Amino acid sequence: MSKPLILVTNDDGMFAPGLQALVEVVRELGEVVVVAPDSPQSGKGHAITITEPIRLNKVSVFEGIEAYECSGTPVDCVKLARHVVLKDRKIDLCVSGINHGSNAAINIIYSGTMSAAMEASLEGIKSIGFSSLDYSFKANFEPQKPYVLQICKYMLHSEVSSNLLNVNMPIDAIKGLKVCRQAEARWVEEFQEGIDPRGQKYYWLTGRFENQDDGNPDTDVSALDAGYISIVPSKHDLTDYEALTELRNIEQ
Amino acid sequence: MSKPLILVTNDDGMFAPGLQALVEVVRELGEVVVVAPDSPQSGKGHAITITEPIRLNKVSVFEGIEAYECSGTPVDCVKLARHVVLKDRKIDLCVSGINHGSNAAINIIYSGTMSAAMEASLEGIKSIGFSSLDYSFKANFEPQKPYVLQICKYMLHSEVSSNLLNVNMPIDAIKGLKVCRQAEARWVEEFQEGIDPRGQKYYWLTGRFENQDDGNPDTDVSALDAGYISIVPSKHDLTDYEALTELRNIEQ
Repeated sequence: MSKPLILVTNDDGMFAPGLQALVEVVRELGEVVVVAPDSPQSGKGHAITITEPIRLNKVSVFEGIEAYECSGTPVDCVKLARHVVLKDRKIDLCVSGINHGSNAAINIIYSGTMSAAMEASLEGIKSIGFSSLDYSFKANFEPQKPYVLQICKYMLHSEVSSNLLNVNMPIDAIKGLKVCRQAEARWVEEFQEGIDPRGQKYYWLTGRFENQDDGNPDTDVSALDAGYISIVPSKHDLTDYEALTELRNIEQ
Repeated sequence: MSKPLILVTNDDGMFAPGLQALVEVVRELGEVVVVAPDSPQSGKGHAITITEPIRLNKVSVFEGIEAYECSGTPVDCVKLARHVVLKDRKIDLCVSGINHGSNAAINIIYSGTMSAAMEASLEGIKSIGFSSLDYSFKANFEPQKPYVLQICKYMLHSEVSSNLLNVNMPIDAIKGLKVCRQAEARWVEEFQEGIDPRGQKYYWLTGRFENQDDGNPDTDVSALDAGYISIVPSKHDLTDYEALTELRNIEQ
């Protein structure tokens, strides 16, 4: 039996320690190909590049592993991997991350890491986004690695109806894994206002995370607070099915 | 009773005819404030600007209407509108569009138009994204205007549990409104390869839309094919609830 083909990507760029940690884990499981952005792409959501060309360059970053850096967004990386770099080959698993910072709760929709994973899942590829609660570039991923390995093996060898997992990990003292739903939460924005060197006013986005699902034990945020790794099976159908019937009277 | 406060935004930029058409419709319904990107932002998904400052400039584009152009993404526009331009005021409705091109089916996740609407809905604001199947900048929005008015009035005056609608509209000969689910569909990508004037290789994203839900009458794509305006109540919870139980054995 041939080795599984594993695509690795992220949104923090080719030289992020989180990407390196992820490559170190999955290279035990199969043939690894990396296609990652050539610059940090945090907060890029599901953006794609349509009004300009994208560049793709082969690079030597990980010994013995084929790697390409791409000038586009994380979603562009996955599209190029699927349709140019690995054209005509079956990708068995796509892993994205390990992101430096949480993608739990509503962060999933802003996250380049999770959007890359979702794009792969749209192509029918089993896909996992991994994120650590540690925002630091000096984050230590050692405590998380055995769990990353376990979850990748599970996804490779099981038939689960969801082909997209959003995995978030505490920094250390990890108690285990919890399968949960996306917490209802939002960012409360505050813009920092300033004057630039040319005397022009600017606004710089900042904010704080607000969990509106506080006290409910079945969410990803609760699992993380309790020291567990959260796993949210996710999908791309945004239909609000409960509202469908209720809304029907607009048709008259 | 004071007039409703209506925020208008889009992803095609301040001078897109679709934005103008939308302003013309909603100015009948209340006080209108426009915050729109200063350049086209198609395909930006739910991207936000976090690594650089954003500019916001008051402009005179629509007679008697307060309008601002913003250097950021459509989601940035909504954040700035809510937290800077209209700080401390209650926004009764946010409308985004009218987009030049379809945002039906999976397009919702790539769409700046729909991401702006979703961002407003995250703030608890009733929100509607409008898109026309006509991609042309010369699109005629006259046949669509009465329906846009009807849907905005409905949203303003009804209590619906979903505060986010994805509305897509045929170009003309419109038969009416259909409430429906998001079609299962995807983009089949093909990258156009080329050599730039400096001799460097580039890739340019292109592709064709593939409806995988063909023949199912309850989807937005089917409604549009049959000449109806499609209305999909949408949400930001991406949890795949059906897969939750099935996945639980990974916790052991």
